[in-house]
Amino acid sequence: MGKRIITLGEVMMRLSTPGYQRFLQTDSYQVVYGGAEANVAVSLAQWDQHTAHVTVFPKNDIGKAASQYLRQMGVSIDHVFQADGRMGLYFLENGSMQRSSKIIYDRFDSAFANFDSSAVNWDAIFEGADWFHWTGITPALSDNAAKMTLKALQVANDKGLTVSGDINYRRNLWQYGKQPLDVMPELINYTHVIVAGLADFENCMAISSEDYNTACTQAKKDYPNIKYITTTERGAVSASHNHLSAVLWSAEKSSKDLLFSKSYEMTHIVDRVGGGDAYIAGLIYGLLYMEPQEALDFALAASVLKHSIAGDANLVTVDEVEALVKGENIGKLLR
Amino acid sequence: MGKRIITLGEVMMRLSTPGYQRFLQTDSYQVVYGGAEANVAVSLAQWDQHTAHVTVFPKNDIGKAASQYLRQMGVSIDHVFQADGRMGLYFLENGSMQRSSKIIYDRFDSAFANFDSSAVNWDAIFEGADWFHWTGITPALSDNAAKMTLKALQVANDKGLTVSGDINYRRNLWQYGKQPLDVMPELINYTHVIVAGLADFENCMAISSEDYNTACTQAKKDYPNIKYITTTERGAVSASHNHLSAVLWSAEKSSKDLLFSKSYEMTHIVDRVGGGDAYIAGLIYGLLYMEPQEALDFALAASVLKHSIAGDANLVTVDEVEALVKGENIGKLLR
Amino acid sequence: MGKRIITLGEVMMRLSTPGYQRFLQTDSYQVVYGGAEANVAVSLAQWDQHTAHVTVFPKNDIGKAASQYLRQMGVSIDHVFQADGRMGLYFLENGSMQRSSKIIYDRFDSAFANFDSSAVNWDAIFEGADWFHWTGITPALSDNAAKMTLKALQVANDKGLTVSGDINYRRNLWQYGKQPLDVMPELINYTHVIVAGLADFENCMAISSEDYNTACTQAKKDYPNIKYITTTERGAVSASHNHLSAVLWSAEKSSKDLLFSKSYEMTHIVDRVGGGDAYIAGLIYGLLYMEPQEALDFALAASVLKHSIAGDANLVTVDEVEALVKGENIGKLLR
Amino acid sequence: MGKRIITLGEVMMRLSTPGYQRFLQTDSYQVVYGGAEANVAVSLAQWDQHTAHVTVFPKNDIGKAASQYLRQMGVSIDHVFQADGRMGLYFLENGSMQRSSKIIYDRFDSAFANFDSSAVNWDAIFEGADWFHWTGITPALSDNAAKMTLKALQVANDKGLTVSGDINYRRNLWQYGKQPLDVMPELINYTHVIVAGLADFENCMAISSEDYNTACTQAKKDYPNIKYITTTERGAVSASHNHLSAVLWSAEKSSKDLLFSKSYEMTHIVDRVGGGDAYIAGLIYGLLYMEPQEALDFALAASVLKHSIAGDANLVTVDEVEALVKGENIGKLLR
Amino acid sequence: MGKRIITLGEVMMRLSTPGYQRFLQTDSYQVVYGGAEANVAVSLAQWDQHTAHVTVFPKNDIGKAASQYLRQMGVSIDHVFQADGRMGLYFLENGSMQRSSKIIYDRFDSAFANFDSSAVNWDAIFEGADWFHWTGITPALSDNAAKMTLKALQVANDKGLTVSGDINYRRNLWQYGKQPLDVMPELINYTHVIVAGLADFENCMAISSEDYNTACTQAKKDYPNIKYITTTERGAVSASHNHLSAVLWSAEKSSKDLLFSKSYEMTHIVDRVGGGDAYIAGLIYGLLYMEPQEALDFALAASVLKHSIAGDANLVTVDEVEALVKGENIGKLLR
Amino acid sequence: MGKRIITLGEVMMRLSTPGYQRFLQTDSYQVVYGGAEANVAVSLAQWDQHTAHVTVFPKNDIGKAASQYLRQMGVSIDHVFQADGRMGLYFLENGSMQRSSKIIYDRFDSAFANFDSSAVNWDAIFEGADWFHWTGITPALSDNAAKMTLKALQVANDKGLTVSGDINYRRNLWQYGKQPLDVMPELINYTHVIVAGLADFENCMAISSEDYNTACTQAKKDYPNIKYITTTERGAVSASHNHLSAVLWSAEKSSKDLLFSKSYEMTHIVDRVGGGDAYIAGLIYGLLYMEPQEALDFALAASVLKHSIAGDANLVTVDEVEALVKGENIGKLLR
Repeated sequence: MGKRIITLGEVMMRLSTPGYQRFLQTDSYQVVYGGAEANVAVSLAQWDQHTAHVTVFPKNDIGKAASQYLRQMGVSIDHVFQADGRMGLYFLENGSMQRSSKIIYDRFDSAFANFDSSAVNWDAIFEGADWFHWTGITPALSDNAAKMTLKALQVANDKGLTVSGDINYRRNLWQYGKQPLDVMPELINYTHVIVAGLADFENCMAISSEDYNTACTQAKKDYPNIKYITTTERGAVSASHNHLSAVLWSAEKSSKDLLFSKSYEMTHIVDRVGGGDAYIAGLIYGLLYMEPQEALDFALAASVLKHSIAGDANLVTVDEVEALVKGENIGKLLR
Repeated sequence: MGKRIITLGEVMMRLSTPGYQRFLQTDSYQVVYGGAEANVAVSLAQWDQHTAHVTVFPKNDIGKAASQYLRQMGVSIDHVFQADGRMGLYFLENGSMQRSSKIIYDRFDSAFANFDSSAVNWDAIFEGADWFHWTGITPALSDNAAKMTLKALQVANDKGLTVSGDINYRRNLWQYGKQPLDVMPELINYTHVIVAGLADFENCMAISSEDYNTACTQAKKDYPNIKYITTTERGAVSASHNHLSAVLWSAEKSSKDLLFSKSYEMTHIVDRVGGGDAYIAGLIYGLLYMEPQEALDFALAASVLKHSIAGDANLVTVDEVEALVKGENIGKLLR
Repeated sequence: MGKRIITLGEVMMRLSTPGYQRFLQTDSYQVVYGGAEANVAVSLAQWDQHTAHVTVFPKNDIGKAASQYLRQMGVSIDHVFQADGRMGLYFLENGSMQRSSKIIYDRFDSAFANFDSSAVNWDAIFEGADWFHWTGITPALSDNAAKMTLKALQVANDKGLTVSGDINYRRNLWQYGKQPLDVMPELINYTHVIVAGLADFENCMAISSEDYNTACTQAKKDYPNIKYITTTERGAVSASHNHLSAVLWSAEKSSKDLLFSKSYEMTHIVDRVGGGDAYIAGLIYGLLYMEPQEALDFALAASVLKHSIAGDANLVTVDEVEALVKGENIGKLLR
Repeated sequence: MGKRIITLGEVMMRLSTPGYQRFLQTDSYQVVYGGAEANVAVSLAQWDQHTAHVTVFPKNDIGKAASQYLRQMGVSIDHVFQADGRMGLYFLENGSMQRSSKIIYDRFDSAFANFDSSAVNWDAIFEGADWFHWTGITPALSDNAAKMTLKALQVANDKGLTVSGDINYRRNLWQYGKQPLDVMPELINYTHVIVAGLADFENCMAISSEDYNTACTQAKKDYPNIKYITTTERGAVSASHNHLSAVLWSAEKSSKDLLFSKSYEMTHIVDRVGGGDAYIAGLIYGLLYMEPQEALDFALAASVLKHSIAGDANLVTVDEVEALVKGENIGKLLR
Repeated sequence: MGKRIITLGEVMMRLSTPGYQRFLQTDSYQVVYGGAEANVAVSLAQWDQHTAHVTVFPKNDIGKAASQYLRQMGVSIDHVFQADGRMGLYFLENGSMQRSSKIIYDRFDSAFANFDSSAVNWDAIFEGADWFHWTGITPALSDNAAKMTLKALQVANDKGLTVSGDINYRRNLWQYGKQPLDVMPELINYTHVIVAGLADFENCMAISSEDYNTACTQAKKDYPNIKYITTTERGAVSASHNHLSAVLWSAEKSSKDLLFSKSYEMTHIVDRVGGGDAYIAGLIYGLLYMEPQEALDFALAASVLKHSIAGDANLVTVDEVEALVKGENIGKLLR
Repeated sequence: MGKRIITLGEVMMRLSTPGYQRFLQTDSYQVVYGGAEANVAVSLAQWDQHTAHVTVFPKNDIGKAASQYLRQMGVSIDHVFQADGRMGLYFLENGSMQRSSKIIYDRFDSAFANFDSSAVNWDAIFEGADWFHWTGITPALSDNAAKMTLKALQVANDKGLTVSGDINYRRNLWQYGKQPLDVMPELINYTHVIVAGLADFENCMAISSEDYNTACTQAKKDYPNIKYITTTERGAVSASHNHLSAVLWSAEKSSKDLLFSKSYEMTHIVDRVGGGDAYIAGLIYGLLYMEPQEALDFALAASVLKHSIAGDANLVTVDEVEALVKGENIGKLLR
């Protein structure tokens, strides 16, 4: 029971200040490991899916600790490579009220970014797998990483996997000489489920529109393999209080049939990092096992719960997500 | 100054995850001690009442630490018994927003549950005492514990104490072969102040009604010793935000004279465990020293303050509770 | 770049309970250093102003640690004196919801309060300085401290510095035999920017009015050096949720031209101590570099951000304050 | 690369006081998971052996957390069963100098002890496996557990695995009605590598001798499957300072050829729990890959290193153990 | 069972840096409460003696927390007085190796030192008591405190209690105008068991001798009520490693019959504060229940164990002390 | 009072595991900042010398926090440069007994290593300075850093400063294409006080000798500016227990007149990182204010004390070092 799902991407050591301390105040950092794609794998592993994460760790105890973390969370490390080099890091300062959360990245020149993947046996990795998930962060890191993504996508398509891609455009990355539009369209072409907001459409797909439905319709024309396009909509009252909704466009539906979620108030956010990854994990699970509207509702509820959990990963059960979808147990003391 | 109040019940070691960590994340637990009845004793001791808690602890350093806790909080341990066996435990995970708090109990087969109380000298324990408080948790634990409760109630009535009982029906307990209706009615018959919601009426008193007043009126017929019946009403926006009100039925009043409290918003809950026990302690204090409406208001305000305090016990002063009743000092920085 | 700003006042060791623990629960205290005037200096130092704090520390490692703190935060300790005696302390318990925060002071007989400042060379201290800030706490501590304040004010005026004073009347201080009205008027007379609420007007300036504008107009008559008078208005929903606004009266404007800020909701307060000091620092910065309305807006936004930061000091940048004034970045995750 | 090694036994949650705090002082406990057999599996997994631990966890988040721990450490949880019931616990107080370390067990009636293993498919578990390790703790817990051990041993022998058993006699266990001599001899008969001190010989094998060699010789007569017998010798200067040596008796050698290790001084012990398990893991590794004397030296060095590591498990590499055997790197700062 | 023992003295809040941090490094302090006399009471309470401590706490939550601590440890607070004023404090930095531990006192002008004890009913306090213990710290603090000590001693003698006094001369105290020789001799005259080293003899009893026996003999002449004189001898290899022995002089013995203890090596000291108080508690217990040599041995073993325990108080059992006297269990893991 | 001392070098963020946790166990890291040269500056600042550290920090809050640290410790940051790029890091695992401490560096491509120093005004930096200290780590990092070192040395010599250099050869550095012997001799030629062991002589000065005196004599011939050469000798019983001595060769003395220190036992090491830097700081202080033998003794005692202090920096006073030289206060509790 459970599908085989492969994810690819860098995993960073996350160093976060305790409580609401600023970087300028802390004398300790809490450590977890996270990355946009690995976070998806961890979520899905909590839901008894067979996930394996493809990544590269440095050959030292820091890399070993990161591997142990994935294994602890139920993600297979059979396809984790070791290489000389460093671990990508990010530092996180948790905001409150009108003070925003801040991230300082220190991820360039990592063992992952510098990895020569030419010897990777993607056929073996994808053997028996049902789904492959990638994000736009990987091809933004380095030419090596972009090439690895492309090769993985080609093999995944050859072997008939469903492919999801989170476009996730970040201007601060893309420093190795190529522009998103040089790289992303080819990758998107191999992808069936796209996570993209309007800025992603513009920067990575050269589609400019103020209307999500229009953008999706155009995307389907340009990238005929697309089956679903989705995005979340976050409104921020403050760093502590957001509201969140989501929309799912299906290629099988007419343009009037965009699916909408309800909107949740998140009034005492514990940790918003990984909220989007939790949504994607929920959507993958949903599209594997549910109807589209159910999938959308499951995905959004999963993401909402993530905001109550410290760390990058969404450590909730299917039952907990489904109870939230149904509005059950909210605020109860479960004994 | 101060009345003599006796409470009876198991005290558990509470192991709670730090901050908002899930059970799956923690590598440490914070430890306090608590139990529905001991929590009442601790509250009342904060208010300079002479409380003594009757319980059983294992003969080891864990039991000694629990005894020390009660003594620290001002509760007499003169009637704490020691026996072979284990300490009951419970694990607590503190929820946030849409993620509920969770408790995992590990309390079966405890030194308390297995204790043979036949040699307990209840006459000595109740000598000079004014009030006795028990809850429906104790008779649910074991036949031994049910017998101890009954014996205590008989002597307390013989010696003229006022008796309060928190029905507190929990389906997961009651695993020793008896059903609540086999045991509870006899115990309730010895009780003057009853804490019960509609589910408690149904499961422990065989009174089914959708209307609180009707249920209370029926209870008075079935259990003529009853003087007061009360319950709190909790509404949950989320794990972080509840509202709370309470109602008090008095046997001396006509059915139209149910007393109602105001409703409080609790918007940043620190710890809701023990909120009900804080209410009961407030009510006992109130009924000892105030008019019923004042008692109700005092009890609810005490419970509201408890939600701002970590741990099972309500460490507030009478002045703090009374200030909240009057709406004073709210949000001030007291220097 | 940056003005030279001198502040004078006691710095205390602040011992606060972790999280929301009550004094009765804690077995550790977190330590920072703070004082109404030093907090202003630290804020201004974060904004690249050249601040120096004049104070007295005991000749021991506790005093040395406090000095190090000021230096760390960018405040010059060139005018920190050392003397025998003790460090003033205060203990802080952080409230939540309906439970108020509490401070227990232990500051009497400190090295600062007992310091004989007759040998202090104020001319040297104020050489090249632009601004001097004092508060009504200092003259309330001891006759020595009141004399030091007066001497500093006289020299500051002689040397043409702009002087700000936070009246900050606290009844619990003033235990050395003099009353505020014996001391404060003379000090206020040397002051150009006054921070005062209606109670401060009454207790320290003998001006009784229910109307802020009227009070300010009278103050200008009594103390002709005044250029600006300001105060913040705090409304408290609970210890966790306040709203805050401010008003600025300018001597150059007609009585109808009181400047008003917007009002901010602060819904998840991390630490409200030092909120007023952050406001004053913002106002000093604003009056040095901006128009009055801008200064007011900057000051209030600075104060709002302070409530999201643990400790006495407001560790934010000018950019962060200005973004809040403009309503930018609120609730965003800054990468 | 790496052998397949199966271990069987209860895993407990270990709750230890921080630093050198006594049970009476602590308000938090640090949590790890451990058990004599699982500790062996974790050690071997650090050395790239394919280990799988057979155990039973309660069906709740505590059991899930324990499973995650095993997985994190590289031990397969494919043969972890879930059952209703509780997790065994133990509380640990770390001694210092003349004050001994203390353990309070709370492990009776656990999900493991009560597990009915009749449906366990031992053939599947042992398929492809090279080694099986058990200890005398398991048959001491319950009749169920003793039966599970026997069945496992029978199948392991049928399938030709090498079997090691740590006799580990503890008087406080064995409370289910049977005596060690009722149970252990049959189990020992299926075992090839025995870890036993003189008290173990007497209590579990009915062999009384003051001389280790004599006892071993007799054991070989009584239990002809035995190939190796071993024990460590611990001398205690204080809780902080022990010395440790070991001896290995081989059935292939004459009685004069007992192998002896050197003796190590352990002068600043961090955590001695699991020291014996680390020795056994080292011996299993050694007997799989080395000559007997090398195996003995490797095992003892592994155990010595364990005493420098907090927790039950020995998180060291083969390289680190071998360096200690050679006396390399001691006290160096490895960069 | 158990004697009634009264102790008198100030209790301070102890603020210690975590681990081996220096004052200059810490951002938190760990809190316990201690005082030379209260530490004795706590030790004796651990051994089931009925102890009551006479002291004065400020009327605030800090004082209440200190009271709770005494009560937790089993010491009666029936004779704890409340007064305006401050709590005495001391800051502790734990040394290591060649770096010494350091204490910074902040205890002047405390509620205790300023307390007017004229209304204290010593007859009631000593009713039914067997033993009274005081130290030379109390009369060194203030004239009020010296008078309270004298009055207590007079009534204790009148009522026939055995009195012990720890001379404990500290030059830094005695700042209120009187010299030790003005005050101490009268107090010593009421005392039967004296704890004094050669410096104490000289400074507080005007007895100068290099020989302990000679000094004791002279003391007996000058203070004929003396029955026992004792002191410990500490040798310091480093802050981490001391050795400790003790000597007991008895008035009933000839000068050749000084009793000597063995000497203990303490090689990994956890906390040496309170080591002397633990010795005195042991001696009181010993003299109440044992022969002099046994008492001496018990006292020294108690003190040695204290050095393994964090905080001022010696939280060990009689069984643990007796095991050390016998040399049992040293370095064992007690299960 | 106090000399002006300039140091140059990279400062890293140090992330160390708490207590004795291994990298594989930790979920938090403690943060301090350190570097071989900055550690020297911090030590000297504790001793009231006017130190300024020349370094480069990234333009972000991590760099700002590091700057604040230097300022807190009394080191001037007037010559700290800001540049794009990353902060060098190192991870530290504290060993115990036979388990060695481990460092994982992550310092390549830092803002410091990549800094183009051509615009640095060394004349201004060295204006009024007395001493310049560099180490062999800086020229090992990058060509940029080597050039910066050379330029600094040339100007320092031009302006008549005394120059000390810690050769500190580390094979793992030197990855930018040059070899030590390509770079170091020119730098050493500008240096008067050399810290070098025999391996440093060989690798960086091409002097091979087994005898320290011979090596020094040869060095003086090759590098005629040398006045002093020194090294410490560390013997390691275990990670917890080292012994340390030092030797000082003076160019003014005959070859028979090598100065030797005593040897110290360090039996409970808290943190050995920075021990060598503490020695150098001590030597600089000593050579500025003392005779050579005194300087050597002071330097070694300073280094010994460092081993008792957590973090890279030696936070001790001159009085504390001098007391250790004299053998005073060892193991005392300083009140």
